[in-house]
Amino acid sequence: MVEIIRPTLVINKDVCLQNIEKMAQKAKSHKLRFRPHFKTHQSAKIGDWFRIFGVDAITVSSVQMAEYFARNGWNDITIAFPLNILEIGNINRLAANIKLNVLIENREAATALSKRATNPVGVFFKIDTGATRTGIDPSKTGTINSILEILSNNKKITFKGFLTHAGHTYSALSTNEIFSRHFDALLKLKNLKKKYQSRFPDIEVSIGDTPSCTLCTNFNGVDEIRPGNFVFYDLMQYNLGVCSLDDIAVRMVCPVVAKHPSRSEIVIYGGAIHFSRESLINVDGKPFFGRIYIRNNGEEKLLSERNYLSKLSQEHGIIKVSQKSFNLIQIGDLVEVVPIHSCLTANLARKYLTTEGEEIPMINT
Amino acid sequence: MVEIIRPTLVINKDVCLQNIEKMAQKAKSHKLRFRPHFKTHQSAKIGDWFRIFGVDAITVSSVQMAEYFARNGWNDITIAFPLNILEIGNINRLAANIKLNVLIENREAATALSKRATNPVGVFFKIDTGATRTGIDPSKTGTINSILEILSNNKKITFKGFLTHAGHTYSALSTNEIFSRHFDALLKLKNLKKKYQSRFPDIEVSIGDTPSCTLCTNFNGVDEIRPGNFVFYDLMQYNLGVCSLDDIAVRMVCPVVAKHPSRSEIVIYGGAIHFSRESLINVDGKPFFGRIYIRNNGEEKLLSERNYLSKLSQEHGIIKVSQKSFNLIQIGDLVEVVPIHSCLTANLARKYLTTEGEEIPMINT
Repeated sequence: MVEIIRPTLVINKDVCLQNIEKMAQKAKSHKLRFRPHFKTHQSAKIGDWFRIFGVDAITVSSVQMAEYFARNGWNDITIAFPLNILEIGNINRLAANIKLNVLIENREAATALSKRATNPVGVFFKIDTGATRTGIDPSKTGTINSILEILSNNKKITFKGFLTHAGHTYSALSTNEIFSRHFDALLKLKNLKKKYQSRFPDIEVSIGDTPSCTLCTNFNGVDEIRPGNFVFYDLMQYNLGVCSLDDIAVRMVCPVVAKHPSRSEIVIYGGAIHFSRESLINVDGKPFFGRIYIRNNGEEKLLSERNYLSKLSQEHGIIKVSQKSFNLIQIGDLVEVVPIHSCLTANLARKYLTTEGEEIPMINT
Repeated sequence: MVEIIRPTLVINKDVCLQNIEKMAQKAKSHKLRFRPHFKTHQSAKIGDWFRIFGVDAITVSSVQMAEYFARNGWNDITIAFPLNILEIGNINRLAANIKLNVLIENREAATALSKRATNPVGVFFKIDTGATRTGIDPSKTGTINSILEILSNNKKITFKGFLTHAGHTYSALSTNEIFSRHFDALLKLKNLKKKYQSRFPDIEVSIGDTPSCTLCTNFNGVDEIRPGNFVFYDLMQYNLGVCSLDDIAVRMVCPVVAKHPSRSEIVIYGGAIHFSRESLINVDGKPFFGRIYIRNNGEEKLLSERNYLSKLSQEHGIIKVSQKSFNLIQIGDLVEVVPIHSCLTANLARKYLTTEGEEIPMINT
């Protein structure tokens, strides 16, 4: 058993396996390929937990991550990030060994790939279904046609279909709004598929975000889902109504180093380099960085919403607590903080410890 | 020469050496010990650059960082973080080999250290001079006396003096406010020193923040300064009036992957896992994550304040630009982003590349 003496990202493997199983079953029941996004956990070991549920194709967000998972036995990978033409050399090397898909959304990247692809590579068109982060507006079939024309010059390239990340579900104010944004994305993609299916009978539609994939039940026209965050969930998903607190599989466990009764604050070893600076707005209208569990006589206890991680500097965290909670927490105790955004927190932690005491490495550990 | 193909933290060694030299000279001219904080760069190699200017004592923010720099030849280290009693075992092991100082601010930690310290260790009292992050209020001499009493039970422990981090200079609205907060901190520490100097003639006063150490010229009663961020500076310091843009030694160099003319946005490979989510408020009253340099016909060009990194997701960054700038930036180009908070950005980067093409590792690289 590893003793926790400093900020440590603890993962509950049972909860994590449950989250994976539920999503795998959902995909199966809707006849969707389940291609989970591995950017959330970034761990070959946690990747192996997905194989239990029949997963053999994955999504990543960078070429480096694709290289890492390819080294760890994954041979069907989509890099869900607009093609970075400076990395085409690495993409060619990867595509020599695995089934690789990349995203294209402009003529410049299409031209570079068409000129330089030396191994078979699949191309999805990144479609902007409303998130306005990046991607092609679905009405711009002129752009799509000219990119198809460019790509057709290289026989190594296969047009695979249309992909979106409806990231605007994260700014929804209600689950109804998640449903309607998802539905709108479905319509746009279905129309595109219809338009190109006669020329390209095998093209697919791939959608991604955890809120839609968790809550929605209409996947009309969709072939593949790529959620990532659901493996851990977090307070952002809880806040959106996507998961319960019990579905959240990770907590940052932090030592208490000081107490300040005059302002009802607890100082923990655990700061911006452990949690990231991602915040939500709490019941008092103030930004906060996490909810708190403590152990009281061995019993796990969730503190109310009025107790929260309120400030972060590089290594310090300040927890605002009620007077009752203040008296329950002592210097030298460990508190457990539920993170706002598990992807960014895991990326900073660089490794995990399971509740059973097993250390789990990540990429670059 | 290393070719940049993905987000890379590039460091200008000349600027960095200048920053170190200036601060070393300032310390010397005010007869202050210069004990720079190494949490900003976290690199043994960059640490070596400080030796050129006679530095032989350092500050770190964690036991792990102390272990790393001790392995790399530093033998006089202050861990400027409230003693985490769960790490006393590691502290004992470190103190067997180097001159080590720790911070105490409550009876609980003092009691644990007094019971368990097995090797000589120096103790600074962490004083809260107004930042209200943590530390003892300087008026609470009762607390100070009782901690001194507890520590006196272990002859391995030496009371070294009073230490503060006037972190509230970071929320100053003018350089005058930085001066006044610094002056107020000096007064508080000077009074404390006076009170205890007859009993402890060798006690010292140690102060820390980069804004005060850079701007202020009154160090009355101070024995030691511990600035850290000045080695790189960043937009936060620039915004406070502490440095010029030319003093900032690091930039995140990022590939351009997409352009969206309809909203005058450039998409870069470079997101929250590269920059951190630390933001400032720009001229339009909106949060932003960095300022932009581009290369135009080989010439470096700083884009105006109306061009800025406006949004971050895990790996994507969105740059808002003027129409003129939009036309100067092409897909496949590299843009250079000045970070808001260099400490957090460096912590995420895990390594540096100098402008001369040399790779510089960090702790845990």
